Amino acid sequence: MTPRQERALEITRHAEADVLLAAHPSTVAWLTGFFGDIETGPSPFALPALALLAPGEAPVLVVSEDEAGAAAELGCEAATYPGFTIGPLEPVAGARRALELAARGRRVATEPGALPAALAASLSLVDVSAQLGRARAVKDPDELETIRAALVLCDAGQLAAREAAEPGMSELELWAVIRAAIDNAAGGRTPLLADLVSGPRTEEVGGPPTSRALAAGDAVLCDLVPRLAGYWGDSCATLVVGGEADGPLREAHRRAREALARAVELVSPGVRAGDLDAEIRPGLEYPHHTGHGLGTAYHEEPRIVPGGETVLEPGMVVALEPGVYEDGVGARVEQVVLVTRDGCEILSGHALEL
Amino acid sequence: MTPRQERALEITRHAEADVLLAAHPSTVAWLTGFFGDIETGPSPFALPALALLAPGEAPVLVVSEDEAGAAAELGCEAATYPGFTIGPLEPVAGARRALELAARGRRVATEPGALPAALAASLSLVDVSAQLGRARAVKDPDELETIRAALVLCDAGQLAAREAAEPGMSELELWAVIRAAIDNAAGGRTPLLADLVSGPRTEEVGGPPTSRALAAGDAVLCDLVPRLAGYWGDSCATLVVGGEADGPLREAHRRAREALARAVELVSPGVRAGDLDAEIRPGLEYPHHTGHGLGTAYHEEPRIVPGGETVLEPGMVVALEPGVYEDGVGARVEQVVLVTRDGCEILSGHALEL
Repeated sequence: MTPRQERALEITRHAEADVLLAAHPSTVAWLTGFFGDIETGPSPFALPALALLAPGEAPVLVVSEDEAGAAAELGCEAATYPGFTIGPLEPVAGARRALELAARGRRVATEPGALPAALAASLSLVDVSAQLGRARAVKDPDELETIRAALVLCDAGQLAAREAAEPGMSELELWAVIRAAIDNAAGGRTPLLADLVSGPRTEEVGGPPTSRALAAGDAVLCDLVPRLAGYWGDSCATLVVGGEADGPLREAHRRAREALARAVELVSPGVRAGDLDAEIRPGLEYPHHTGHGLGTAYHEEPRIVPGGETVLEPGMVVALEPGVYEDGVGARVEQVVLVTRDGCEILSGHALEL
Repeated sequence: MTPRQERALEITRHAEADVLLAAHPSTVAWLTGFFGDIETGPSPFALPALALLAPGEAPVLVVSEDEAGAAAELGCEAATYPGFTIGPLEPVAGARRALELAARGRRVATEPGALPAALAASLSLVDVSAQLGRARAVKDPDELETIRAALVLCDAGQLAAREAAEPGMSELELWAVIRAAIDNAAGGRTPLLADLVSGPRTEEVGGPPTSRALAAGDAVLCDLVPRLAGYWGDSCATLVVGGEADGPLREAHRRAREALARAVELVSPGVRAGDLDAEIRPGLEYPHHTGHGLGTAYHEEPRIVPGGETVLEPGMVVALEPGVYEDGVGARVEQVVLVTRDGCEILSGHALEL
């Protein structure tokens, strides 16, 4: 049993439930290591995997038959129903029956915001979503290893962006280069959340790539968030397209970098998230968080936001990303840090210069 | 009110409910035109959109504030909660309150396999998933227009694959070229389901691209399924990498093409899906459907499978995709057709030769 499975069962006991039913894909990945394809939305052939955990039993994944092999490789039992089939397509009924058999009438601690109503109907439920969200903030050593590997993908993407950006190229063309670099570094298709905006679009904070052509002196704001083996990396840099940055861009970038350096300096166990936010935000007034945790979700506790009450602890991972958006230009820089016993370690390796 | 909204309200009346609550993203897109980002899985900031439809009222989308503008552009009202926020992050509670206000205690026909349990708790529900699935099979004219546009993206991707495939290139490199061609044709990031397998991998029917290098004479099986404006296209071709195809590949390809041509010939109103399958499958024995409907989902009715009871009607869209997988090689070819009054029209424009 992993340390995080122990923490999950502790939450289950506190809630006076017999068994934990993880329903959100990020919780299922956290508990079992199982992650599904996400790039094309809900599958017509299967529901998102559920994970059932009870004291003294192997974790059970409620998945389609197509995913039973992956479950076994993770040391999980599989409660299955037909997936990709030429027979009748009834994944909801199939998953409900598989779950009922696995739950055996026991009282279930779960996440009702992610569990389909059709599967909840016959269960006795208690909501432990908030407790699970908090429990995920401190990472186990194997999770840190996977996050480090996801950040290597970020570094590869950021390097590709910096080397490829040139006048005349469209944002979409630059995007294709970045994406290929990340897929090649990962050895396969890689889910990728991203902002890729250039020129005046940088003042809008973020957005997807368009057919806009890059011009010399344009800023490119590139925020890359790839998923590897169920865990997300995160990174942001702002660079200038071949030639000289003008004054407003240089100034915005300088202020963002100073804010990031100051935030990294302040990260330490015992620091309250809201206090860290209050040290960095004034004078910059970016319309987003100062930072956030990441793991099996790309935004989780500790959220570094005004009033945030989470207190930093060793083993938490925080992406820090102050930005400056004014005078027709935006600049944001981001690094991911690991909270250590006496401060933090920077996990990101990408370049931050303009 | 669109023809499909009328059909949805007819289903609602039959179920003795007052209001329809679409919960599956494909049903929400079908009813309202609203579609969300899907490429990076569930958002930490919002639940998937819900759509509420009642007689004589404008459709209501239950979405985060970030999506209110998109709802308005579609002529929908928006029942909102905070989305991307620096305040507390409580999308489940927010969506539940917004939905309760919009539902006003009325009896709700819905899809309990997609509706989160947390949102269903206070509603009086009846399950109309199966009826909605059947109602989606016949397309309205505006839906056909969008499907045609999604198929143009397929054609662009298939052409790019054919032009770029050459010995020494990896599957992932070919993938990057295909993806860039589709994104460029669409003018932005495009969700893309795909099989891209080469050489002996083609016998395994499908799978994602890997770092395997293409060799002269290799088959490349390329099945491209992009989403445009909420609607999916679909296409498959099998091509040979620079040089000559060997006998088994030529033979598998010939048999697959003949089967596809025969299937297209047979599509006509009144034909039962299972009968069509039974005409095409014998002797080929591919481990998948002979075909399927597509629209706001990439696999829906009419499913052309053994025993399939759906009877083809004008306005249905069917992707036909017989394949042959044996002797170390696989070949599959696919075209999308529209059932017309006296047969069908081929909507796909990509090349099918080897």
